[in-house]
Amino acid sequence: MSDLINKQILLKSRPVGEPKESDFTLAEAPISQPGEGEVLSRTIYLSLDPYMRGLISEGESYAANVELNSVVVGGTVSQVIQSNHPQFQAGDFVLSRNGWQTYAVAKGATLQKLDPSQAPLSYSLGVLGMPGLTAYTALLDIGQPKPGETVVVSAASGAVGAVAGQIAKIKGCRVIGIVGSDDKRDYIVKELGFDVGINRKTEELNAALKAAAPDGIDVYFDNTAGVILETVLQQINLGARIPLVGLISEYNATSAPPGPNLRPLLIKRALIKGFLVSDYQHRANEFVSDVAGWLKSGQLKYQEDVVVGLENAPRAFIGLLRGENFGKLVVKVSEDPTAV
Amino acid sequence: MSDLINKQILLKSRPVGEPKESDFTLAEAPISQPGEGEVLSRTIYLSLDPYMRGLISEGESYAANVELNSVVVGGTVSQVIQSNHPQFQAGDFVLSRNGWQTYAVAKGATLQKLDPSQAPLSYSLGVLGMPGLTAYTALLDIGQPKPGETVVVSAASGAVGAVAGQIAKIKGCRVIGIVGSDDKRDYIVKELGFDVGINRKTEELNAALKAAAPDGIDVYFDNTAGVILETVLQQINLGARIPLVGLISEYNATSAPPGPNLRPLLIKRALIKGFLVSDYQHRANEFVSDVAGWLKSGQLKYQEDVVVGLENAPRAFIGLLRGENFGKLVVKVSEDPTAV
Repeated sequence: MSDLINKQILLKSRPVGEPKESDFTLAEAPISQPGEGEVLSRTIYLSLDPYMRGLISEGESYAANVELNSVVVGGTVSQVIQSNHPQFQAGDFVLSRNGWQTYAVAKGATLQKLDPSQAPLSYSLGVLGMPGLTAYTALLDIGQPKPGETVVVSAASGAVGAVAGQIAKIKGCRVIGIVGSDDKRDYIVKELGFDVGINRKTEELNAALKAAAPDGIDVYFDNTAGVILETVLQQINLGARIPLVGLISEYNATSAPPGPNLRPLLIKRALIKGFLVSDYQHRANEFVSDVAGWLKSGQLKYQEDVVVGLENAPRAFIGLLRGENFGKLVVKVSEDPTAV
Repeated sequence: MSDLINKQILLKSRPVGEPKESDFTLAEAPISQPGEGEVLSRTIYLSLDPYMRGLISEGESYAANVELNSVVVGGTVSQVIQSNHPQFQAGDFVLSRNGWQTYAVAKGATLQKLDPSQAPLSYSLGVLGMPGLTAYTALLDIGQPKPGETVVVSAASGAVGAVAGQIAKIKGCRVIGIVGSDDKRDYIVKELGFDVGINRKTEELNAALKAAAPDGIDVYFDNTAGVILETVLQQINLGARIPLVGLISEYNATSAPPGPNLRPLLIKRALIKGFLVSDYQHRANEFVSDVAGWLKSGQLKYQEDVVVGLENAPRAFIGLLRGENFGKLVVKVSEDPTAV
């Protein structure tokens, strides 16, 4: 194998804002021999996905960042050339992470064998691979769409969005896709069967969403965050679910967008959920029993800030908003005959 | 009862920014007779809570807004004067929503009888009432704190925050409270048993949180939103849970804070959850079975945008971030021997 030349694309400089071709450089390298348990493969298809933008920046992302002068990472479909791993032999097709290079050596345990008779090989980088699984689980497990609900998908013609929107249609939802061109809008409506497509570059998003989703939005499959999320939030229904799947709108940003910035929510797979106590009346009995017990045992202390006289309510309320009260603020409007 | 005078506080003008005393006015009114099924009661305690700020503004909140020249709303503990409802009689103590006035007539069905031998009457406006139930359910049902985890509470000396933090301690967590004065900081640590208190007005919040939560933050009980949420988000752990309970930081705001503004999330009790596909590998088999089936039946369509040649990967990637691709972007690095 030593006569083969490995063409690689290396990260030459960390892009500031939109990446430039000069941030990358083409290099050649000898091909290393696979060690024990390792496999040498030739790259057939390389997947390009928006998440990679985060990996070529500095700073925290959900995967290790690409070092300068290293091969850019990426999922690939590859064919085994030489195998020192019992599960693979020359000629096998595998799902691997060869990155942006023509050959790579990898541990066999990181590879997954592909059956080319089941679907075109490249599909395992898309609809039957990571983007498809993303669309399927983020929509169904977090979004939990119910028949008749309205689902909005951003970046709707992309690898993830196109699948998410179609699955929402299969589940009986009204589906609205947000895209960036008329061609894409026509594509998601005429080819993919979305109910409405919105070209956010030529249409006023807020008005277009109101027209397309007159009953409000139940699920927002968010690939973009930023201003699209902000706009969709204005039109969500009670109990809406928003899987935050991508941050396309800010991958190229050179400064933090105005806060609260939701990037940590994505990276940490964290959850923010709006709360209103009236939804939790079914917990009232358990609550009173627990809290009354903790009060009695002294594990929980309670302090009141009692203002006397209804006429003092406005001033006390103003102070409350300034944080001037100390403990729970109540106004004693008339005598409490039970007070000791 | 017609010799009794009802003192009321009416909303005179909608506050712009911080409310002023002149936004309210004291008035007197005759007391109406209770009709069939109604109860006349005298207000003993009136609860003042930050959420009321939203109700005296224009615009959507989660409860009906207070009309101009109407009595300001609010929860009360009251004593029944006259009852035309079989479940109540004169002398009974009830939890009601008399609002900012000394007497009110209400439908009996909206009242809840209180037993003054169980706890001081005013507690049903606080630790044993709505603020307590808020603390209990938002922390336990959404926050789901586990022993040893780190919980941060904002507005930690307030009616809700003080209870939430103490319950987190009871559940075995490390608890950090954010407050607005040294007195309050001393109070939550020395009296309530919080592990750390941070005075956000004198300490640099980011650095103080790092020192107080060296292992990161697992639950953030958010009463404030705004810049405190923004700062806490920088330090959350994988799988963190953030019940969004209040928006104190923006109740007085005269313009929308920089987006994405999370007010709709609270009002609609909606959910944003960060997603990463690697958390969902356990769904891979069901995914492949479903999606391969939908592809075969034609219910799901898939389009690829194939770029030929590794050397074209950088340009294709730049175009991807600009939204120039059409369908899933893959680079064909070498020949696919299975392609038709």
